Amino acid sequence: MKKNILLTIEYDGSVFHGWQRQPDKPTVQGCLEEVLTSLLGETIALNGTSRTDAGVHACGQRASFITQNSIPAERIALAANNMLKGRERGAFAMSPVRIISSEEKPADFHARFDAKGKRYVYRIRNAAGDDVFSRNYVYHVDAPLDTDAMKRAAALLKGTHDFKSFEASGGTPRETTVRTIYDISVKCERSGGGHRVSDEAAAEAFAGDVEISVSGDGFLYNMVRIMTGTLVDVGLGRIRPEEIEDILAAEDRRRAGHTAPPFGLYLMEVYF
Amino acid sequence: MKKNILLTIEYDGSVFHGWQRQPDKPTVQGCLEEVLTSLLGETIALNGTSRTDAGVHACGQRASFITQNSIPAERIALAANNMLKGRERGAFAMSPVRIISSEEKPADFHARFDAKGKRYVYRIRNAAGDDVFSRNYVYHVDAPLDTDAMKRAAALLKGTHDFKSFEASGGTPRETTVRTIYDISVKCERSGGGHRVSDEAAAEAFAGDVEISVSGDGFLYNMVRIMTGTLVDVGLGRIRPEEIEDILAAEDRRRAGHTAPPFGLYLMEVYF
Repeated sequence: MKKNILLTIEYDGSVFHGWQRQPDKPTVQGCLEEVLTSLLGETIALNGTSRTDAGVHACGQRASFITQNSIPAERIALAANNMLKGRERGAFAMSPVRIISSEEKPADFHARFDAKGKRYVYRIRNAAGDDVFSRNYVYHVDAPLDTDAMKRAAALLKGTHDFKSFEASGGTPRETTVRTIYDISVKCERSGGGHRVSDEAAAEAFAGDVEISVSGDGFLYNMVRIMTGTLVDVGLGRIRPEEIEDILAAEDRRRAGHTAPPFGLYLMEVYF
Repeated sequence: MKKNILLTIEYDGSVFHGWQRQPDKPTVQGCLEEVLTSLLGETIALNGTSRTDAGVHACGQRASFITQNSIPAERIALAANNMLKGRERGAFAMSPVRIISSEEKPADFHARFDAKGKRYVYRIRNAAGDDVFSRNYVYHVDAPLDTDAMKRAAALLKGTHDFKSFEASGGTPRETTVRTIYDISVKCERSGGGHRVSDEAAAEAFAGDVEISVSGDGFLYNMVRIMTGTLVDVGLGRIRPEEIEDILAAEDRRRAGHTAPPFGLYLMEVYF
């Protein structure tokens, strides 16, 4: 009796060459297929919702697969996580990938084709100084960001637009570059010390964390990273907020801002 | 004209096989010596204060070296950091090691022999659930820790004692195992939601971050990790706080608790 299983997956993208299986390179799909094939005693092929790039993280990636194994669907997560942990060296070592949950779905369910939308978060550390510990997890911007300007620009990206200016070359060819952004927000938490007095500390007074959250019905290749890079350029005063309308209308990648690095990006949720 | 230079160094220990240079393995000392040798045009040998183990981090490691190069001492940090960054792939990539500052010292200064003491911090994540993103940076303990008991036990470690019970085999032979702990504190920040109502959330109600800070005139091999493991065993109810006195008196490694993993440990400061 075949069962259709849906996984919810969390991973640290900094140790993988992206989601998609590649020969001779560690990928999330490759790692999970190996473990599930060994666990279930049959060759498992995963259909992931999103082919995240190298360095991109996930808190809520989804992937479905068919199995004939009679193990209860809910037990697959724990059993696979134990095997993932066993692949690491040392008694305390944890795996960079973890299955949050496993559940049975109807036979015709498909994690990619049935996805109605996704939500991403992009994390920015806005501070003069570097920090070696966060280098794989946030985009470090060392000049003050005008987050009010970023919020005004973000509001112009919301809704249904042709996002051709925000598409990188090299992705899967698409029928249309029109997409709908359900919601986009720019949050800012300033931790910098207004109470500090030295000259050195004054440069750090703007230090804080900026988080861009964006949900939509679909995203073009590198679209969230180009949107983020463009918003950062707005925050740095290189692009005026109201220029977003012209950039969208131009349908030309060269008009938008830079592509933000992969390591600040997190796939948070998939909507079915 | 020879100059004696002292560096203050920060590094992410998860990508290094420890501080000490080894053939064919990435180490912090090896990485820095390579860059400084290239920068200064002469073979540089670093004297590091502490030989941190594989996986152990540093926010304030110190190392001194002799150079004949006429570059102003203060400029070495920036120049070396630019070279360290250049070794990484990608426009945005950051190095896992960073020189915080470089300064000139008297000719007879030595970063190891002149160290009067050190301060370490050990970071524990106390929560039922795992988190793939912090796996290289905190020790994950998944049962509730009684931090009041840990504080009482920690107080008994303060002062001058024979710490033979807290020494692992395999380190450099020492003349004496008597050391002085200047200060030791256990701090706890609970983030768990007392406002949550589900059964699942109840298990998470104790979630929080525990930080052990310890300063002393010197530490035996794995001493901070064994002290931490012992305090965690106290927090889990496996060892009573008042047993610390017996453990110290026994002068026997088997009486103390487990050795906490390296990746929660941070060398914070060196006192000269």
